[in-house]
Amino acid sequence: MDGEHLQAEIISIGTELLLGEITDTNAAYIAGRLPFLGIDLYWISQVGDNKARIIEILQRAWNRSDIIFITGGLGPTADDVTRESIAEMLGEEMKIDPDLEKTLRERFGRYGFDMPLSNMKQATIIPSAQSIPNPAGTAPGWWVEKDGRTLITMPGPPRELNVVWQETVQPRLEERAESVLVTRTFKTFGYSEGGAGEMVADMLAASNPTLGIYAKPDGIHLRLAVKAESVEEAEEMLAESDRRIREIMAGHIWGVDDDTLEAIVGSLLIKKGLTLAVMEDSHGGNLAPALNDIPESKLFLKGGLLAGTDLSMIAFGVNPDIINNGPGDELACAMAESARNLLGSDIGIGTVGTDEVTRDNPMGTTYIGIADALGSRAVSRPRRRQYVTATILFELRESLLNKSG
Amino acid sequence: MDGEHLQAEIISIGTELLLGEITDTNAAYIAGRLPFLGIDLYWISQVGDNKARIIEILQRAWNRSDIIFITGGLGPTADDVTRESIAEMLGEEMKIDPDLEKTLRERFGRYGFDMPLSNMKQATIIPSAQSIPNPAGTAPGWWVEKDGRTLITMPGPPRELNVVWQETVQPRLEERAESVLVTRTFKTFGYSEGGAGEMVADMLAASNPTLGIYAKPDGIHLRLAVKAESVEEAEEMLAESDRRIREIMAGHIWGVDDDTLEAIVGSLLIKKGLTLAVMEDSHGGNLAPALNDIPESKLFLKGGLLAGTDLSMIAFGVNPDIINNGPGDELACAMAESARNLLGSDIGIGTVGTDEVTRDNPMGTTYIGIADALGSRAVSRPRRRQYVTATILFELRESLLNKSG
Repeated sequence: MDGEHLQAEIISIGTELLLGEITDTNAAYIAGRLPFLGIDLYWISQVGDNKARIIEILQRAWNRSDIIFITGGLGPTADDVTRESIAEMLGEEMKIDPDLEKTLRERFGRYGFDMPLSNMKQATIIPSAQSIPNPAGTAPGWWVEKDGRTLITMPGPPRELNVVWQETVQPRLEERAESVLVTRTFKTFGYSEGGAGEMVADMLAASNPTLGIYAKPDGIHLRLAVKAESVEEAEEMLAESDRRIREIMAGHIWGVDDDTLEAIVGSLLIKKGLTLAVMEDSHGGNLAPALNDIPESKLFLKGGLLAGTDLSMIAFGVNPDIINNGPGDELACAMAESARNLLGSDIGIGTVGTDEVTRDNPMGTTYIGIADALGSRAVSRPRRRQYVTATILFELRESLLNKSG
Repeated sequence: MDGEHLQAEIISIGTELLLGEITDTNAAYIAGRLPFLGIDLYWISQVGDNKARIIEILQRAWNRSDIIFITGGLGPTADDVTRESIAEMLGEEMKIDPDLEKTLRERFGRYGFDMPLSNMKQATIIPSAQSIPNPAGTAPGWWVEKDGRTLITMPGPPRELNVVWQETVQPRLEERAESVLVTRTFKTFGYSEGGAGEMVADMLAASNPTLGIYAKPDGIHLRLAVKAESVEEAEEMLAESDRRIREIMAGHIWGVDDDTLEAIVGSLLIKKGLTLAVMEDSHGGNLAPALNDIPESKLFLKGGLLAGTDLSMIAFGVNPDIINNGPGDELACAMAESARNLLGSDIGIGTVGTDEVTRDNPMGTTYIGIADALGSRAVSRPRRRQYVTATILFELRESLLNKSG
């Protein structure tokens, strides 16, 4: 291959794909990761659980591609024939691997099941393949090296694919990579896509680094990407654009790359030793669980209160007179204060939505209250759950950054 | 074709697909609709905006398929080459169609723009094609009929594809349809995929109806599919397999087709006039929001309590002595009872997890308490959020069904 990029192809196997029962998100998952490994993707295809058609597509891939990624068809039932098809295409024989069998039996044992006989084929392997461990399921993958080609099979359920990719496939591909793509994503809040685009128009027109703009639920993302022979060289090539974006977007950038607003706000709370409690009505109900998903949530999240009815709000300590006035700034602040009081947190958040449609907010309005030792304040936003969650977190971040501490 | 099923293939065109920037939802959209038109889908592929590779894939499709569906690559810019590739593959010449040009110019005029010259190619057509109107965008499709084959191009943006499909493509295909597919999915809980497979092994081996087995977060799904000349005939052909599956899986089937456990449990609660309150510790925290997402949740969900700390549990009314004993059946039941008392619901659910790893539960354990007017009971499961949520809902369904009501 001598410095040339490897030519890759993805084959997703499963009759569900051809029946439109599921969308092939695995192909996009893999495709999005190959540029970073210096691998060029030329083909993606989906085929049903049909051995003749799988072998035809495998044979074509084997003839034209350096690396073939295969997902799906590794289940225990008779309709899963990915392993059989690969073995037949390569003219090799599947044999049971005693270590794989042991691992599989232990897995069933842990859940208190006897292993059905049909699962035995998940313990098979062919001579040119090594097994790829699957800590998230019963189907290990195969890593085939033969005639200068690489063929990698991975389980179809996205959760399993992700684990197998991250733990084994990506690290092994990284070892071979001859060029790298380095990217940096700046995450901003408070711009429109077009507005952000105009601010960085010259960089959008440039190549290596290229700049892309994406509208996401947590704001506008700006993604710089540069190709180079080494990470060091790439970092050097990124430095100037990085500096300019940070200057132009100052105050609006809340994070980079894998940062999430939840984690950023969580870290700020932990750093300042502050705790949080949340009360949401049935229009919301997602902020506390989102914060709870952060591994460190125990250090700052006292709890969440989801009020399905007005009576529940009263049980949580909200003044019935304020509830009777209906959703608004006052109720959002009262909910924030009650959450803070009931759970003994430093900061309380309250959110309450209304279906009432106005010219400005055709989707209804969500009122957001933030309460701390100094009092409470409210903002309101169009009622769109993800946007509201991002607004709350961005507001919280602002107020935490403005607090001395 | 004489009663035989048409053999179809989908080709999605766009370099974004190969970079993993977007997921090909169009293929799944089309695929999901073909079975009901008596069209068998054998292949799906994605290819970049590269003329040589598009022509290669088109030529293969032309040789093996009766109907070819193509999406994407119909934009005005130079990188969109779907039209050019089809014309070249068929050896035909693209010409500007005066009617299409007029429609296009009018469209730009309505928005107050002059039509850029580059858009002119969206007004082209080849002799074997008819134009497919696109009321949602500037790219009309082509409907090619030649040598007994049909080739249909549609715009790539999903919103435009959906309109074009619904307004023109589907009605025209319906006129030709000679058979229909009817499916029924049985959703079960409490089996492994292999275990369920062995129970219905003979049906898995049969054809028309065919049976497929799928492991999902809410249990094992069994999907019957039958092809027939009419819906009535199909229903008749399904009846025996339907009866047998219901018999074999009795007690484990909780729903069919689009049913969700959340909605099933919600309907049962509404039907019996019962209300629910939930308390979860930080290992869970997702049951109340999942129930809150059901449109009718206001009719049965009093609220949710997410306890981030032991002190929050005490604030919610749980006995401190029981909390001190640590996670277990007793605490789960106490949480269920406290949720019920604080929010005044008929049924209370409590869930608490432990990180403690045992040979049986290498992921830790979640204890689930269910309390009602008659008392409380507990079950425990390996700590895996989706599995726990499904377990709680299945248990709740069981106890609601066993209550006279």
